[in-house]
Amino acid sequence: MRPPIDFYFDFSSPYSYIANEWVDALAARHGRTVRRHAILLGVAFAAAELRSPVAYPIKRDYVLRDFARSARFEGLPYAQPDVFPVASQLAARIFWWQLAVAGEAAGAHWARSAFRAYFTRGSLLSDMAVLRGVAQDAGLDADAAEAASNHPEYKDALRRANAQALAAGVFGAPYFVVDGEPFWGNDRKAQIERTLERGPMQV
Amino acid sequence: MRPPIDFYFDFSSPYSYIANEWVDALAARHGRTVRRHAILLGVAFAAAELRSPVAYPIKRDYVLRDFARSARFEGLPYAQPDVFPVASQLAARIFWWQLAVAGEAAGAHWARSAFRAYFTRGSLLSDMAVLRGVAQDAGLDADAAEAASNHPEYKDALRRANAQALAAGVFGAPYFVVDGEPFWGNDRKAQIERTLERGPMQV
Repeated sequence: MRPPIDFYFDFSSPYSYIANEWVDALAARHGRTVRRHAILLGVAFAAAELRSPVAYPIKRDYVLRDFARSARFEGLPYAQPDVFPVASQLAARIFWWQLAVAGEAAGAHWARSAFRAYFTRGSLLSDMAVLRGVAQDAGLDADAAEAASNHPEYKDALRRANAQALAAGVFGAPYFVVDGEPFWGNDRKAQIERTLERGPMQV
Repeated sequence: MRPPIDFYFDFSSPYSYIANEWVDALAARHGRTVRRHAILLGVAFAAAELRSPVAYPIKRDYVLRDFARSARFEGLPYAQPDVFPVASQLAARIFWWQLAVAGEAAGAHWARSAFRAYFTRGSLLSDMAVLRGVAQDAGLDADAAEAASNHPEYKDALRRANAQALAAGVFGAPYFVVDGEPFWGNDRKAQIERTLERGPMQV
């Protein structure tokens, strides 16, 4: 049994949304599974003294264009949310709840549902009323999802995930670790695929 | 006659070295030529309030690994120079000299020669004695190259290139403009290729 691909993401990250759509199929083509880690990129940015690319005016116009183009390159719908970035801790805690009570596939299902809601329909994941609707559309119990999003257990699970990500060297999202080799960015897909085919490219 | 691909680079940028190796073949496959612009990334960074990725400790380890891996992905040799980044204005002025006196192919030849010297042999492009050797290896007259690297005309050509790049929205390197569509990064190669094949992906 070959080790899973670790996949770190933030629900507010467009490139994470895109990667979330291809990572399972890519892993499956090479006999791997995906281990997802919902984190808060703000924590990683603060630790690394980095800022979001949209925080820089000159870069902002470019990356907004690149978000849509990169989605299109993967054949995915994309609509830039009006509110961006969005506070993503509630959605992340629901992820950790689903992972804990229903397993990896349920976590992946929630990740896909929440990402699509935000990046194709602009559903504001930070708004509890909206989030309840997204949960319901994903087949979850809205009351249970709301409770999980504020539960000390899942607050703690998210804090632990952030700390673990920092310890693993994560400074951006999406971030992947394949057999110990780190990859940052949706645009490292081809390198990840070649690594899965032939082993690490790095000496 | 379809318009050329504009290609902005800094001689100190590893991803620019890599892109410089594939951009001509990619352009030629689609009936295009390449118009090179040697610039100083520091000027663009300052204007955009950005810093080099190696300026962030957590990011530094990753990108050093990624430089070598990304070169390997393209089948290119790469040896991380001991002195990095390097002050690249002398090499850039020699580029603008060659472009002015001998044309685009001569500029491309110098770009390739200087990039390979720095990123495969660690030749310090900021050191005049070393630079003279690199120029000579590239078939240039070392005295003429040294003179050009300090000549007001080519100092001015480089300043104009930096200003033009800023006006064009360049905030990093390599940076490409294909039929008005901007692309930042060696890792946008596949998107550039698809744009050349099918036209802009962006609505």
